[in-house]
Amino acid sequence: MAVSSFNPPIRTLMGPGPSDVHPRILEALSRPTIGHLDPQFVSMMDEVKTMLQYAFQTTNELTIPVSAPGSAGMETCFVNLVEPGDKVIVCQNGVFGGRMKENVERIGATAIMVQDDWGKAVDPEKVEDALKANPDAKVVAFVHAETSTGAQSDAKTLCELAHKYDCLTIVDAVTSLGGSELRVDDWGIDAIYSGTQKCLSCTPGISPVSFNDRAIEVIKNRKQKVQSWFMDLNLVMGYWGGNAKRAYHHTAPVNALYSFHEALVMLQNEGLENAWQRHYNNHLALRAGLEAMGINFVVDEADRLPQLNAVSIPEGVDDAEVRGKLLNEFNLEIGAGLGDLAGKVWRIGLMGHSSRAENILLCLSALEAVLGNSINSGVSLAAAQQQLTK
Amino acid sequence: MAVSSFNPPIRTLMGPGPSDVHPRILEALSRPTIGHLDPQFVSMMDEVKTMLQYAFQTTNELTIPVSAPGSAGMETCFVNLVEPGDKVIVCQNGVFGGRMKENVERIGATAIMVQDDWGKAVDPEKVEDALKANPDAKVVAFVHAETSTGAQSDAKTLCELAHKYDCLTIVDAVTSLGGSELRVDDWGIDAIYSGTQKCLSCTPGISPVSFNDRAIEVIKNRKQKVQSWFMDLNLVMGYWGGNAKRAYHHTAPVNALYSFHEALVMLQNEGLENAWQRHYNNHLALRAGLEAMGINFVVDEADRLPQLNAVSIPEGVDDAEVRGKLLNEFNLEIGAGLGDLAGKVWRIGLMGHSSRAENILLCLSALEAVLGNSINSGVSLAAAQQQLTK
Repeated sequence: MAVSSFNPPIRTLMGPGPSDVHPRILEALSRPTIGHLDPQFVSMMDEVKTMLQYAFQTTNELTIPVSAPGSAGMETCFVNLVEPGDKVIVCQNGVFGGRMKENVERIGATAIMVQDDWGKAVDPEKVEDALKANPDAKVVAFVHAETSTGAQSDAKTLCELAHKYDCLTIVDAVTSLGGSELRVDDWGIDAIYSGTQKCLSCTPGISPVSFNDRAIEVIKNRKQKVQSWFMDLNLVMGYWGGNAKRAYHHTAPVNALYSFHEALVMLQNEGLENAWQRHYNNHLALRAGLEAMGINFVVDEADRLPQLNAVSIPEGVDDAEVRGKLLNEFNLEIGAGLGDLAGKVWRIGLMGHSSRAENILLCLSALEAVLGNSINSGVSLAAAQQQLTK
Repeated sequence: MAVSSFNPPIRTLMGPGPSDVHPRILEALSRPTIGHLDPQFVSMMDEVKTMLQYAFQTTNELTIPVSAPGSAGMETCFVNLVEPGDKVIVCQNGVFGGRMKENVERIGATAIMVQDDWGKAVDPEKVEDALKANPDAKVVAFVHAETSTGAQSDAKTLCELAHKYDCLTIVDAVTSLGGSELRVDDWGIDAIYSGTQKCLSCTPGISPVSFNDRAIEVIKNRKQKVQSWFMDLNLVMGYWGGNAKRAYHHTAPVNALYSFHEALVMLQNEGLENAWQRHYNNHLALRAGLEAMGINFVVDEADRLPQLNAVSIPEGVDDAEVRGKLLNEFNLEIGAGLGDLAGKVWRIGLMGHSSRAENILLCLSALEAVLGNSINSGVSLAAAQQQLTK
């Protein structure tokens, strides 16, 4: 044996997440651990809730980080709102809709799938057809920002439709929170989950969620217990709830919550709409550079997520070789394609602290260096610089 | 709004966990984040597995940290090994046996409860009676180290019994791993879960687990899918498995794993048996001091966990007031009683980095200061010092 301490390389993270973590947030992570029931920790939890409400644009009381990664945030939404025998309309236009289906079926409920091509937004017409054909459906679930394709769907319209047919909505906002417009209350989202390691620049490991009163009513009136003890919000609310006396449920990930608190302070200081605008502006610059290089986007312009740029791998280019060279020669991570898009696309993230002018220039110049003759070289930096200085 | 950064107070953590985190481990936590599929991160994961096998004293290939707290580690064991309709013998001698029952029932299985008084070890005779009465039982589940009472049970004997009646074992070792003797292979433990924030001195948030081949066989031959997608070991194994190509399952808590790696390096450097001995020696010193003060232990000497000292609150003493004064005047956290023992006991942890001579002296002198006339004051430090210098 005799394993030594692990000293990670210094990477620039421009994949689908984790994104670069701001040094302030890393430093917050290493502050001294205190007890999960310490009065000062409990006050900090209240601040996390308040700032997370701001990030989600909601007044929902039940707005908390789940003590586990985004996949557990997803599962928390499904196991609390869905019971065996229920019918859930699941919109799939990428990997994560498929994961929603798995969640529904493992509860013993039925998933009615509404399929759209990968890279397209969810088509509201198809959703309305499914709602008409399934008047007994209880929930409509969809991905606001598909991390596997870089497509965003019209959450407001889909929520309105769902409510018109008396359904609840479960929304995946793992990649949108803090990076592009997201308004939980205005859009009528009933349950939502996200991640910390994307546009919030925080380390991975916890999952922000929010539930409105309508959703809580359903949770409180379930016929049977939530199948997961760990994720049962009836119990979690006792720890995160507004009571002076917090009931022990599980030991909170104390230091992870320090860093999440710091990430939310930074978001508050920047201003949510400024953060959205920054992500959009930097997307325009990266886009200008990539297009000048002759690299094309997978998603139609209207449906593109600014923070996650899925582009087609140029013909004749070896996917793994290029990503390997970017990593080994320039310490730059970009994302591979996932599922149906494996080997066909790259996913270039401009999320959170990664969404910076210097990262764009590095990414474009490193890509030029590695792709060499395969692309229209030497023009991309100029195009990006021009866009950045507009 | 305008929330500021959170700067925690500097506490000494002598409750039931989290325990004091060593500065080296806090520093590791704040190293730069890299991708969860980065080749260097994957190498680090292999080292974590190897060192965790050492900590558990096992050669089990499936020895990994679950990306969520100990409660999720418990649930991972149950949802993977137990199916609806199964019968599980659950030994309860504190809070966590009750949580096991919840887990069994939420799967749609039957829990046969074997009850022992809180503060007592699990009685093997009662377990054998339950095994005889339930020849169709599939699993025996018990808590090796009851964090709510400070009692340890004879895991080796209980596993032998379970196997004699052809049952698998699920063992809660949240508070024992790294703090007192625990031998997964020698004792024949089939599935085990633990926590990082107790005797390993790491931050809370992930849960080490281990499963032997017999348990994996059961998981691979399940009749139906594991009810939790997030905790499904068939999927988790694809990410943590031995293959060169790791399949994405969820985004690992990268920085939490840095700190866990560092905690395991420190355990390796100290030596597992030396760590057990240190916990025992420091227990003897704390015990000498408490007994000199006239404070009595809840658990019989033979069954006491050295790392978690449950003591009766002296008559006439206000529980919350004393704990509040220790915290506010001396920044010292000790644990309250849980469940049936709330208000009746304190739980004084000497776990991991908290298990140090200086912490013992602080705890005894602070208790003397706060309890004042309620106790036989002034003699405890001498007794502890004498024991420490033996």
